[in-house]
Amino acid sequence: MKKAIGIFDSGVGGLTVYKAIRNAFPEEDLVYFGDTARVPYGPKSPNTVIEYSIQNSRFLLQQGIKILVVACNTSSAVAVPALHQLTGIPIIGVIEPGAEQAARSTNNKRIGVIGTEGTVRSNAYTTAIQKLIPDAEVFSVACPLFVPLVEEGWQDHAVAQIIADEYLTPLKYKNIDTLVLGCTHYPLLHQTIQKVLGNSVCLVDSAEAIAGYLSRLLPEENDGRKGSDSFFVSDNEDKFAQIAKRILADSFGNLARVRLFESWFKD
Amino acid sequence: MKKAIGIFDSGVGGLTVYKAIRNAFPEEDLVYFGDTARVPYGPKSPNTVIEYSIQNSRFLLQQGIKILVVACNTSSAVAVPALHQLTGIPIIGVIEPGAEQAARSTNNKRIGVIGTEGTVRSNAYTTAIQKLIPDAEVFSVACPLFVPLVEEGWQDHAVAQIIADEYLTPLKYKNIDTLVLGCTHYPLLHQTIQKVLGNSVCLVDSAEAIAGYLSRLLPEENDGRKGSDSFFVSDNEDKFAQIAKRILADSFGNLARVRLFESWFKD
Repeated sequence: MKKAIGIFDSGVGGLTVYKAIRNAFPEEDLVYFGDTARVPYGPKSPNTVIEYSIQNSRFLLQQGIKILVVACNTSSAVAVPALHQLTGIPIIGVIEPGAEQAARSTNNKRIGVIGTEGTVRSNAYTTAIQKLIPDAEVFSVACPLFVPLVEEGWQDHAVAQIIADEYLTPLKYKNIDTLVLGCTHYPLLHQTIQKVLGNSVCLVDSAEAIAGYLSRLLPEENDGRKGSDSFFVSDNEDKFAQIAKRILADSFGNLARVRLFESWFKD
Repeated sequence: MKKAIGIFDSGVGGLTVYKAIRNAFPEEDLVYFGDTARVPYGPKSPNTVIEYSIQNSRFLLQQGIKILVVACNTSSAVAVPALHQLTGIPIIGVIEPGAEQAARSTNNKRIGVIGTEGTVRSNAYTTAIQKLIPDAEVFSVACPLFVPLVEEGWQDHAVAQIIADEYLTPLKYKNIDTLVLGCTHYPLLHQTIQKVLGNSVCLVDSAEAIAGYLSRLLPEENDGRKGSDSFFVSDNEDKFAQIAKRILADSFGNLARVRLFESWFKD
């Protein structure tokens, strides 16, 4: 049996990653897991994000996958080493692809990164960028209100502009020429962010970067068969289906809800 | 052994309820559980909120409690019937106390309710208010951005005013004389909300209402002993401690993190 590419995210944001992979690899079977019952991951502690990421990966491994894509920036930033211990299959987070694209884009070696609290606190993008350009200067800013703003559908509302101004003004004075959108929700604020920073700053979207990165690991298959699309979420399947249909159109397929068995215990 | 009052919330918001209960009952032992690993509950489905509420309650029952207070509005709105099946001890949510206070406050029987998506969708406040005043008209509005705004500490920022305007303007034209703040975070936006609606609208805070409600169930104990304060969270204990110390001062006591045993399964 052909094995699938597994993709997980804390919720719906990773569907932009799904879409980029589907477009690049029309013949691959894809399986997506969105942890909508515990979203968001951004404000949670590294240990909790690692635990959740391991559980999500175990679930995808049970579905039979050959590559695991961590679409969530926060998980990518803190959990990928733990996931490597879990399985021998290749694991790709969004950090390295995003860092590579930023390194290709910058001329003045001054790069901004925006993300959740967890992503920014981890310094994962800074580390990955400086591996490629050791003397790069990286300026990171956490933007916790961007995700709820997009979730509310207010990305074009006047408050989006004001909030973006508040978060991004410090970056304006750093003379950056490249900004990594280090969260799957942020591309929806692309226009607003570009307006605040001006057109001279190049915005890097990890979702786009990851498809190119994946093609190095994946021999192109060409049996002419269309790959299958499967989706699992831990909550709110109706809302997920609505958003997924809008983002993916024809590539939206089977959707099922999975449940957690859980009980509290003291350490 | 003296049994405690157990209080749970999806995160830190319920600390305002804790404080009100502590002030009203200085001699009671209190145990708080904040589910910071899975916060927020507001956008999640009723079934998921019920599951989480049962797990949280089971944990508090293990600590030996005589009364369970559900400080989270979303849990109170959807999970209290399921919790009644779990245990024979009295269970108090914030809905009835808030509804009672709103019913006492209104003169024109036109009442507004603001809350999370889950609370508003449940119609729990409307049902509870109309049980007391059958011909009351209740107008509910979900305000999903209020919680992240308060969590970010931006309750006095210019955007708070704009967001409040956007959410509350429909209520301005309903001629309400009372508004229930149906989420533990909202009292922190008290001034902003009052400014949008004008001083003639009375704002009802369920945290304050619940202490009065509780006194009917609880004989006043007077052995002169100061009650103990215990706190459990599922994540981010440092951040929780910081906020709890600010809200509770001397009443902040022992804090421990509890962990979940969980694994995904398909239905």
